[in-house]
Amino acid sequence: MRAEFTGEVLDDDTLMRILDAAHRAPSVGNSQPWDFIVVRDPDTLTRFAAHVADKRVEFGESLPPERARTFEPIKIEGITESGTGIVVTHDDSRGGPHILGRATVPETGLYSTILAIQNLWLAATAEGVGVGWVSFYDAPFLTELIDLPPGIRPVAWLCVGAVHEFQETPDLERFGWRERRPLREAVHWEKFAPDSSV
Amino acid sequence: MRAEFTGEVLDDDTLMRILDAAHRAPSVGNSQPWDFIVVRDPDTLTRFAAHVADKRVEFGESLPPERARTFEPIKIEGITESGTGIVVTHDDSRGGPHILGRATVPETGLYSTILAIQNLWLAATAEGVGVGWVSFYDAPFLTELIDLPPGIRPVAWLCVGAVHEFQETPDLERFGWRERRPLREAVHWEKFAPDSSV
Repeated sequence: MRAEFTGEVLDDDTLMRILDAAHRAPSVGNSQPWDFIVVRDPDTLTRFAAHVADKRVEFGESLPPERARTFEPIKIEGITESGTGIVVTHDDSRGGPHILGRATVPETGLYSTILAIQNLWLAATAEGVGVGWVSFYDAPFLTELIDLPPGIRPVAWLCVGAVHEFQETPDLERFGWRERRPLREAVHWEKFAPDSSV
Repeated sequence: MRAEFTGEVLDDDTLMRILDAAHRAPSVGNSQPWDFIVVRDPDTLTRFAAHVADKRVEFGESLPPERARTFEPIKIEGITESGTGIVVTHDDSRGGPHILGRATVPETGLYSTILAIQNLWLAATAEGVGVGWVSFYDAPFLTELIDLPPGIRPVAWLCVGAVHEFQETPDLERFGWRERRPLREAVHWEKFAPDSSV
């Protein structure tokens, strides 16, 4: 996806439909702990892209030679090409001290924000709009870049924009990074047991 | 949703289509760190429901009186009524030591599993099948109940089954627990600033 952006910037009507779908995600205790920061300032996009490029080099250098060769041609971001970044953030204090359903599993707050991201992703795809999630960044850098206040945590940078085409096979499978796991290995019956798969 | 299950157990073809949609979620480094344990044994369902009932009481007792009254009529699970539990688990070691995209933001592994849950939820909805996420449980109890091995972490119990109807308004809004936040408050432009909303 990250190689397919046309450079045409998403119109605001489509953008808002996609954000509305994200905002309709279910959330623990109906806490709706997410926010969306739309970034289009070329200076901000360029600064973030430069930071991500550094992190890409660091990761490449951490790999054994065979993995480094596989990694080399894989494009990991389309920050400037897409022209629109959506930073999704999480506020763990939203909803106050008594969040219905979060007392036993506190992480369900953060999980809710991730559900909104997948809603966004699927709504964009339904609109013919491409999404690429960039995770090669240090959180403090992004926090400073878009002035996140204390308590608001960055969760994702999504590159969102018009694309030439949707690939049928995920990039990391096409480039030989990692294969698809068969569904039958992921499904278990009654108990978790590797040999109970369908 | 949790009050609407008809008691009719989901057929296996529909179940597998829903799990296939979940399994097609994007994941960091294509690591596909999720598993799905389908639970239908009446004894297991009953034991889990009893545990959840205890946790419901604990939560109710922790609330100030006004909140406790609002909470009282809200149904929080449909474990036995739905007849099918899907436990979604996360394996943070899947994909080995070099996961593309996880070096800087380690939580993206767990985030991937949550993306699969939202795929599952939307696929079920598209099939006319109801889903209710139960989070009133202690993780060690669920781990033991379905024999999760070390390193496999429970992330969600989803009640999945035929429903009488889909509510238009979320339960927690209908019962006055918590209102919907306007989209314009969640959207920011260029920087995070409460007064920069659309």
